[in-house]
Amino acid sequence: MDNRKRVQFINSLSGFKSANMIGTSSRKNNDNLAIISSVVHLGTNPPLLGFILRPHSVDRHTLDNIKDTGVYTVNQVHAGIYKAAHQTSARYARELSEFEETGLTAERYDGFHAPFVSESKLSMGVKLVEVATITHNDTEFVIGEIQWVRTEESAIQDDGLVDLEALDTVAVSGLDRYHKSSALARLSYAKPDQEVREIPLAGLSDDEKD
Amino acid sequence: MDNRKRVQFINSLSGFKSANMIGTSSRKNNDNLAIISSVVHLGTNPPLLGFILRPHSVDRHTLDNIKDTGVYTVNQVHAGIYKAAHQTSARYARELSEFEETGLTAERYDGFHAPFVSESKLSMGVKLVEVATITHNDTEFVIGEIQWVRTEESAIQDDGLVDLEALDTVAVSGLDRYHKSSALARLSYAKPDQEVREIPLAGLSDDEKD
Repeated sequence: MDNRKRVQFINSLSGFKSANMIGTSSRKNNDNLAIISSVVHLGTNPPLLGFILRPHSVDRHTLDNIKDTGVYTVNQVHAGIYKAAHQTSARYARELSEFEETGLTAERYDGFHAPFVSESKLSMGVKLVEVATITHNDTEFVIGEIQWVRTEESAIQDDGLVDLEALDTVAVSGLDRYHKSSALARLSYAKPDQEVREIPLAGLSDDEKD
Repeated sequence: MDNRKRVQFINSLSGFKSANMIGTSSRKNNDNLAIISSVVHLGTNPPLLGFILRPHSVDRHTLDNIKDTGVYTVNQVHAGIYKAAHQTSARYARELSEFEETGLTAERYDGFHAPFVSESKLSMGVKLVEVATITHNDTEFVIGEIQWVRTEESAIQDDGLVDLEALDTVAVSGLDRYHKSSALARLSYAKPDQEVREIPLAGLSDDEKD
């Protein structure tokens, strides 16, 4: 395989990827926004997220801002803004804001230094906890703790699950393919001695749980 | 929020998650299979994947086997096997094989120690490269290099992208919600001075690239 083909192929192998934009601001308040497909849940208690950055790539302004200010936002990409979100991956000069260049709106929450994306339907403020270097390919795994979440309350189900279809959240595959979703089912908590079964999409009520 | 609700909520925030099963075998050839929603692309050259394991949870047999033998497989979950895949998360005793308990088939590729899932439509053999401990919540980030890939050749597009809809690959949200997908579009490589545009789902031919 030639190199371009190989990049698309290898990028497809892990399956669907999350689509989020990382919002940051430098110490001089230059805003930056970058689409990232590697945001991953790390744990609930404390609530941690991780994602991968390549320090020598278009991502470097994001990494510099996070290291300098200690905070960032993570903003889910939905079907109404995925083209603008993709456009944030262009190699803009450092003094330009991807918000302005792509028509997305930078908004602030309660004095938090990093801007969130006003058009996103789920945004979080995150505090940097740790940057782990993956020595094998010179990338950085950025780990942070969620400080606040802003979303549409109607999308939060009674059992806590956020209905991503209600938010029109998209997924990515390869480098550039975007997907919408439909729910197949929710499945019961798996136990060795019983077969897994479908549960209502809205979740089980407290007295249906065991 | 009570703890169960909080777990579902926090698990929803990163967006869609990949659905893969990790296949391992102990030094004594006890096979193990575990569904994991944190597999993430780390880089193309070398081809690296990462995923998160909790050493004190149901994942511990997987982690022990990987550390002992240095190899594992990653198997995409599709709509035809997602219930069996979910069932692998039950807390089976160490001597039981999740393959046998869930009706999935363990198969070997060319002397590779770890079994892959015969029913999966995309499987990879992976060699352990590094286990990074995330000190903040006592989880392990397992990093490996892809050694071989087995998939349906018809799903690999001319430009290298794997068509995940052709493989019926599913995505996960929260703890237990499974999703199928449909393609919105593929988008052109983003550049600062031009608007992003849709490209054919099958990709651009070589003379359409710039």
